[in-house]
Amino acid sequence: MKTNKINLDAMLKPKSVAIIGASREPNKVGHVILQNYLNAGYSGKLYAINKNATSNILGVRTYQSILKIKEAIDLAVIAVPAQAVPSVLEECGKAKVKSAIVITSGFAEIGNVELQDKIVEIANKYNIAVLGPNCLGVVEPRSRIDTLFLPTYKLSHYKVGNVSFISQSGAIGSTILDIISDEGFGLSKFISYGNAAVLDEVDLLHYLMNDQETRVVVAYLEGIKRGKEFVKVAKEIGMKKPVIVIKAGRTSAGSEAAHSHTASIAGNYEVEESIFKQSGFIVAHDISELLDYAKIFDTSPEPKGNKVFIVTNGGGAGVLTTDAIASTKNLSMAQLSKNTQEKLREVMPDIVNIRNPLDVGGDADYKRYDDALQILAKENSIDIYIIIVLFQTPGADSKVVESIIKFKEQVDKPVIGITIGSEFTQAHKKMMESAGIPVYESPKAAAMSISALVWYYNYKKERMNLIKS
Amino acid sequence: MKTNKINLDAMLKPKSVAIIGASREPNKVGHVILQNYLNAGYSGKLYAINKNATSNILGVRTYQSILKIKEAIDLAVIAVPAQAVPSVLEECGKAKVKSAIVITSGFAEIGNVELQDKIVEIANKYNIAVLGPNCLGVVEPRSRIDTLFLPTYKLSHYKVGNVSFISQSGAIGSTILDIISDEGFGLSKFISYGNAAVLDEVDLLHYLMNDQETRVVVAYLEGIKRGKEFVKVAKEIGMKKPVIVIKAGRTSAGSEAAHSHTASIAGNYEVEESIFKQSGFIVAHDISELLDYAKIFDTSPEPKGNKVFIVTNGGGAGVLTTDAIASTKNLSMAQLSKNTQEKLREVMPDIVNIRNPLDVGGDADYKRYDDALQILAKENSIDIYIIIVLFQTPGADSKVVESIIKFKEQVDKPVIGITIGSEFTQAHKKMMESAGIPVYESPKAAAMSISALVWYYNYKKERMNLIKS
Repeated sequence: MKTNKINLDAMLKPKSVAIIGASREPNKVGHVILQNYLNAGYSGKLYAINKNATSNILGVRTYQSILKIKEAIDLAVIAVPAQAVPSVLEECGKAKVKSAIVITSGFAEIGNVELQDKIVEIANKYNIAVLGPNCLGVVEPRSRIDTLFLPTYKLSHYKVGNVSFISQSGAIGSTILDIISDEGFGLSKFISYGNAAVLDEVDLLHYLMNDQETRVVVAYLEGIKRGKEFVKVAKEIGMKKPVIVIKAGRTSAGSEAAHSHTASIAGNYEVEESIFKQSGFIVAHDISELLDYAKIFDTSPEPKGNKVFIVTNGGGAGVLTTDAIASTKNLSMAQLSKNTQEKLREVMPDIVNIRNPLDVGGDADYKRYDDALQILAKENSIDIYIIIVLFQTPGADSKVVESIIKFKEQVDKPVIGITIGSEFTQAHKKMMESAGIPVYESPKAAAMSISALVWYYNYKKERMNLIKS
Repeated sequence: MKTNKINLDAMLKPKSVAIIGASREPNKVGHVILQNYLNAGYSGKLYAINKNATSNILGVRTYQSILKIKEAIDLAVIAVPAQAVPSVLEECGKAKVKSAIVITSGFAEIGNVELQDKIVEIANKYNIAVLGPNCLGVVEPRSRIDTLFLPTYKLSHYKVGNVSFISQSGAIGSTILDIISDEGFGLSKFISYGNAAVLDEVDLLHYLMNDQETRVVVAYLEGIKRGKEFVKVAKEIGMKKPVIVIKAGRTSAGSEAAHSHTASIAGNYEVEESIFKQSGFIVAHDISELLDYAKIFDTSPEPKGNKVFIVTNGGGAGVLTTDAIASTKNLSMAQLSKNTQEKLREVMPDIVNIRNPLDVGGDADYKRYDDALQILAKENSIDIYIIIVLFQTPGADSKVVESIIKFKEQVDKPVIGITIGSEFTQAHKKMMESAGIPVYESPKAAAMSISALVWYYNYKKERMNLIKS
């Protein structure tokens, strides 16, 4: 592995940045990038490069060429026409720029393989860590880096957190960025890497494996370029942190489409999926699943076992969730001890059947939830709690949420919420999620996520035992 | 089939309603029901019954007993304690009330089978169409009937339309009512039928089969009481309109839970699912799937075949959607004719590969979409269109939506949207949906829904041929 491939700090935590192709015209990519950079609040040194340079663009000092800047540049963001990219990158090399993001498209993905090869050649010659071409670049909220050329009013603002995304597709990445705002986790790094001419998934996984700010990795892949190295880094990172992966192009029609998107060559998906699973990766088949899994891994402690207990104020939702749990391969329903059953019988009204799922009734208020949860907190046979609240019912309100948050802080076990509904419900969902409780809007999504959580920690334990023995 | 079971018009289109157990106290069920009835704007005759009656409650004339009302009553809504239900129902019989909804719970679902049997006995004796007990009742927006005892500020308001819901679970039903507001279809009837002591799924399906205001039926079932009759009505309704069904209690753990919820006795789920499929029912396994399917059936014409074409401004989303389509059992990707390919090549920029999926580029604006769609509208090899718009990109705005709506009006084929994102996206999703385009937030959900649509119309065609031959 070459140096230019592994040191991504220059790209993600740069002390100085030059935007090459910065433009005065508001609808040009080079303008939007510069504007977004300013919006993000980047506090390092910022330069604009425009070959017809005037003294400044958007108040940023502008140069005709990167060679005219006296100081060292950590990152160059390149948004010039495809044909001009090689010469611009060559100048970056001469200026000893450490890393570069090539936003521009029009390379291997439309058959311009030669032009892309030139980029690789220059990157190797000057030892530049190059991301792209044909990508959106990076977002690093802690260092306030945002190279996306997307209008900010179209995206909700992400929260800062510990989930990192790598995405070969720019738009998929931006879509995910947009919906993070509605999810119960925050962003550590976002890296859109497009055609992966130089830096590829192997390099990025390697970097994120050692990144202290990354607790969970989510990857959207279209192709795997270096099979052998991928297997190696996958096995290593799988033991360190959860990786959630979606591979686009898993059908033959899909893989043809992927080729015309990022020039990716499809492997055999079955082989790829088995590599993922052997590495402990959690495999998603839809974008929504990526986020469902990211949420539970970001927030939940390691479960001690696979026994699930369900509390609900909606009988039907309890039944559907029981079905969903029983339909997974690795979860089962917890059985309450006699003692717990008796204690629950004492505090619950007659109309409540003492069983799992525990339907506390459509008229349940915070007191009912609290009474049940305080007893259930002490039950050893439960490994994972699912708490369903249908906020359409009369007694369900913010105080119920408070009871649940208090409970979550008492038990050192995964606590998962399920709730379904519009505005009133959504507000309470956010309350729970901001207290670190992953909340799902479907029993199936909750069950699949819990199943993945249990599967991953079992995987780790088994491999640990193999290593020891 | 007895008369008391089939004439549901008295319940859903009543000319006069009595709320029995109406209360002055705001937190009592009988108060909330009366209040919601008034809120709904019901224009028929409304009476309140309270055994300690004062002259009026909430301005509604109040009687001590239904026997004191001189006029004929179409519907009695009963919200008195369980033990008092039989005598109240007996009075309804004597007063020649045509239909009754028993909201009260505490019957067979907690082992009080005898008390429930009394209800059945009285219903048969007086020929009353009884819904419940242990249910939420009905919503009929056209006749402005709403018997739900749910605080209105907790639910978004449903739109009026042509999808009818029957739900054995009250809370599942109310949850669905709440989220309809965010979906691309409206409500015809909502019927929560609880323990199904008298009126059951067979009666309700029979009624909705002949209801002109119902285009699509969605059913949440926990048990099927009369197998033989169910098979008969199912086969009949399946040929008339699409029925989407979810059966809770399909695992053994789930069916035990269902028994303690609505006293339902589980059948063998595999047998049940095969009955559903033989009847042309679309089987869902999660609440979200119910709504996904309802939406496409409510809005889409019969597809002429199974060939899908995808237009997208996000390459990755195009690849994932292609994967999702290719992963279904019955859909395939359309192949463009030479002529269409040439025409597209003329108007699309060089960077666009002319293929399926057609990635019009991350910089596509309404003109680009419009140019492509106008050519694609004339392509005979396409049966179903999927149009993906990622609104995070610079060119995607309301004008793109207008192009799509115009296109939808030109082609007499299913047009399905996919978009994923937060506020800006959601606003545009609603624009599309209000023009009758079903929009999904996941490629998988879209593909599954299209697959169900094609499957159902194929089923109908095949059975039609069988009948003819």
